[in-house]
Amino acid sequence: MSKVHNFSAGPSILPKEVIDACVEGIQNFSGTGLSVLEVSHRGKEFIAVVEEAQATLKELMGIPEGYEILFLGGGASMQFLMVAYNLLETKGAYLKTGVWASNAIKEAKYIGNVEVVASSEDKNFSYIPKNYTIPSDADYFHCASNNTIYGSQMQSFPDSPVTMVCDMSSDILSKRVDVSKFGLIYAGAQKNMGPAGVTVVIVRKDILGKVSRQIPSMMNYKVHIDKETMFNTPPVFPIFAMLQNLKWVKKVGGVAEMQKRAAARANLLYDEIDNNPLFQGTVETGDRSQMNACFLLKDTALEEKFNAAWKAAGISGIKGHRLVGGYRASMYNALPIESVEALVNVMRNFNK
Amino acid sequence: MSKVHNFSAGPSILPKEVIDACVEGIQNFSGTGLSVLEVSHRGKEFIAVVEEAQATLKELMGIPEGYEILFLGGGASMQFLMVAYNLLETKGAYLKTGVWASNAIKEAKYIGNVEVVASSEDKNFSYIPKNYTIPSDADYFHCASNNTIYGSQMQSFPDSPVTMVCDMSSDILSKRVDVSKFGLIYAGAQKNMGPAGVTVVIVRKDILGKVSRQIPSMMNYKVHIDKETMFNTPPVFPIFAMLQNLKWVKKVGGVAEMQKRAAARANLLYDEIDNNPLFQGTVETGDRSQMNACFLLKDTALEEKFNAAWKAAGISGIKGHRLVGGYRASMYNALPIESVEALVNVMRNFNK
Repeated sequence: MSKVHNFSAGPSILPKEVIDACVEGIQNFSGTGLSVLEVSHRGKEFIAVVEEAQATLKELMGIPEGYEILFLGGGASMQFLMVAYNLLETKGAYLKTGVWASNAIKEAKYIGNVEVVASSEDKNFSYIPKNYTIPSDADYFHCASNNTIYGSQMQSFPDSPVTMVCDMSSDILSKRVDVSKFGLIYAGAQKNMGPAGVTVVIVRKDILGKVSRQIPSMMNYKVHIDKETMFNTPPVFPIFAMLQNLKWVKKVGGVAEMQKRAAARANLLYDEIDNNPLFQGTVETGDRSQMNACFLLKDTALEEKFNAAWKAAGISGIKGHRLVGGYRASMYNALPIESVEALVNVMRNFNK
Repeated sequence: MSKVHNFSAGPSILPKEVIDACVEGIQNFSGTGLSVLEVSHRGKEFIAVVEEAQATLKELMGIPEGYEILFLGGGASMQFLMVAYNLLETKGAYLKTGVWASNAIKEAKYIGNVEVVASSEDKNFSYIPKNYTIPSDADYFHCASNNTIYGSQMQSFPDSPVTMVCDMSSDILSKRVDVSKFGLIYAGAQKNMGPAGVTVVIVRKDILGKVSRQIPSMMNYKVHIDKETMFNTPPVFPIFAMLQNLKWVKKVGGVAEMQKRAAARANLLYDEIDNNPLFQGTVETGDRSQMNACFLLKDTALEEKFNAAWKAAGISGIKGHRLVGGYRASMYNALPIESVEALVNVMRNFNK
């Protein structure tokens, strides 16, 4: 275990053995005598990496037949645009639950008509809206499953009358999801899947090809699918590193085990937040994220002292986002429970 | 020196010490005790990487004031689209010299009006067109300085009456270029700059903001500039690795030294191609690329034997692109002259 307790919101902690496998690949990739940094993406060794990453993700998430898996550059922010480019004909329906969901709305508006079906902006995105109606004349319904910045998470997904699209950047692979409910799932890798630089897109093929606009090649999911996710040079090393992480998830027990660990970490920390009189959570209890726990010191005058305490304990990355303030502990798949225990101990001792 | 002679067309060979520096960064980044794969891109250590990469590139290429340097995901193919999005109002003028130049034209057409000012398609792109006229009513003139697939290279650039835009993906940093002649230069990193996953954009700010269309954020150079190339999570590790390579270029003597080495490698190989009766080059002599030398065996019946010979010598990656056939030796910055000598020896012995 690293001496640093890495609560970074993303890019974020990776398992030690993933890092070791990355080093090995950089020194001698698949016995080629070359570094994974300097091999052709069209070589059989790297094609095997891509195929294994697709197969492992398919197995881990239980992705049904009819879906394609793409590994693209550009980040999830590029997907805000690509989703609209490929799917928006009449109207896109969006759930506005935070910064990234808002950005997805903003980018879709460059392409076409957008309807916000519900928003939690009235209370600084501290909850997930419920009881909204998704219009059946929309081309698709877009939501973000977890809000990294505000620390809220959808505990369930609606039964959408139209194709459901979800940005799962910050909680993918942390809990079981019924992929068949979604037409398209996308996620930047840099939280639960790997390092920054690659974005995973899982798309049901039959939702594509239905818009009337011409789609530029790099924006066009069909082009990427036809070229087996190698329309152009892909982000080779980020994909290689992601595969190492997918293999680690599989080895330690798959998504079911990740879900168990996430619950254990979150319960431990939220219990302390709720029971320690110095702290308070910022999100409605039922909508709290298991990935990103946001909390405040009730007395902000104590912040300097508290900051010194957690830093002294080797804790890194829990400063809250400026839009929320206070603290945010990001607890992604690779974070050991011992790191949460270390934080909880600091909070307890601070109260004493 | 690696035992493998890596002539890969890209992603391609990197210096041993760059690979070593990557390993170090993956194991302990800037003394953080964390891997560069798991740190926040907003942390001071990574911001320092971005700033040093920008400063080093500025120094190496002699980039004047008024230019901004961006490190984007998505690949040079994304720039085909972004260039048109940001600059094309009335008409884009394009020089058609190969596959990538053709792709740039194709993508620009999704955005607006394109004029091809000259093309070498009539002779399978085996030369660089000359004596063409760039229309002064175009918004910009776009060219590709080097054609990886066909092995041709622009030996000089025209005096363009309009903003000149250049895809330098496959020869950036291999020779001195007067950046002030260009409004925008872009290059995928995976040949002379670093591993795959990051694209460098060098843009003179005053050419932006002149088109009437609304530009989606991820497509908008101004947005990326305003956010200091961190509008969203950048490809962290590819940028880190690129910095290690830029530092290596600087240390060994800068672009002047790279140019000297490129000339030495290319002269050695083309001399053999021209003097060995078994082989012939595919590109007009005056337009040959110093980066990618394409050549054929005059008697294709000898191919199997020749393939066995170069493979036995530890040579990798010289199979020609299917559009040209034969052989292609890519000789990027990090390729030692010894690797070219090894290839030339194989060719000589094969003739004996």
